[in-house]
Order: sequence, then structure tokens, then C-alpha cells
Amino acid sequence: MARYEIYVTYKDGIFDPPGATAERALVNLGYEEVERVRIGKYIQLAIEDGDGEDARVKEMCDKLLANPVIEDYRIERVDG
Amino acid sequence: MARYEIYVTYKDGIFDPPGATAERALVNLGYEEVERVRIGKYIQLAIEDGDGEDARVKEMCDKLLANPVIEDYRIERVDG
Repeated sequence: MARYEIYVTYKDGIFDPPGATAERALVNLGYEEVERVRIGKYIQLAIEDGDGEDARVKEMCDKLLANPVIEDYRIERVDG
Repeated sequence: MARYEIYVTYKDGIFDPPGATAERALVNLGYEEVERVRIGKYIQLAIEDGDGEDARVKEMCDKLLANPVIEDYRIERVDG
């Protein structure tokens, strides 16, 4: 079993609606020190061992897990 | 400026609809090696320097950024 953690974030300059909403809500709750909130995805993926796993996980990100037009992603392999 | 990264995940045993959907979609796309996908949130937070920042960020998680009933979170301070 191979395990990966994938971090998906909006590219710089792309509007992040959940982040903007959380930012405003926190300030309204009294956390006036909040400057910026960006909310992306934290994906934990487990796949069966096989050939070319790392390349296939990159493909999965490009095809489905992220939207490369507006998002960046970072893949970390976390199994031994 | 203090910077934090917060990882929000569903607790074990809590159904993760986006993760389950991505898992099925990846298998349908031919990635039959996929065993499990869990999708949580990756939050980047920047706040002004002040007193008791770490405790206030924990409060923000409990009140708004995560739902402690069904989600776990991990906070990492990433500035210097």
C-alpha cells in the first residue's frame, strides 16, 4: 500500500470564496487580528502498490483531484 | 505577522462524501489501484502579531474553521 498526502490550493490571484467567507466571519466574531484565510483541500490517498505509482498519482491530480487551471497542488508520499 | 497551517479531517468512522465520490470517480476512470480517498481542508491563516495567538487560533478552529463534532484538526505554526 502506498500513501500520499496532496495539498490543493488556489493559485495566487484566484478568488477563494470559502477563504474569503471564513476571513470575514472570523473578523465579525471578534478575531480582528485575522489578515488572510485561504482554504484549500487536504487529500489523503491510499493506493495498491504497483508500477509508476507516483506518475499515476500526478495524473489523478491533473484529471480529477485538482483543477490545474485555477489550482496548484503538492504531492507528498508518506509511506515508509 | 504569524502564519499557521491547519489540517481539518473527518474523524474516523465519519462518512466523507467528497472523498467517497472522488474514490469512485478515480476507479471509474481506470485507476483501479485506488483504495481510499479522504478529503479534508488545508487552511492557511495569517494573523497580526499579538498576545496568546496560538490559543486564539485554536478557538477559531473550534468555533468556525472546523466542526469538532465530526472533524479533527491539527494546527502548525509556520512562521519563523
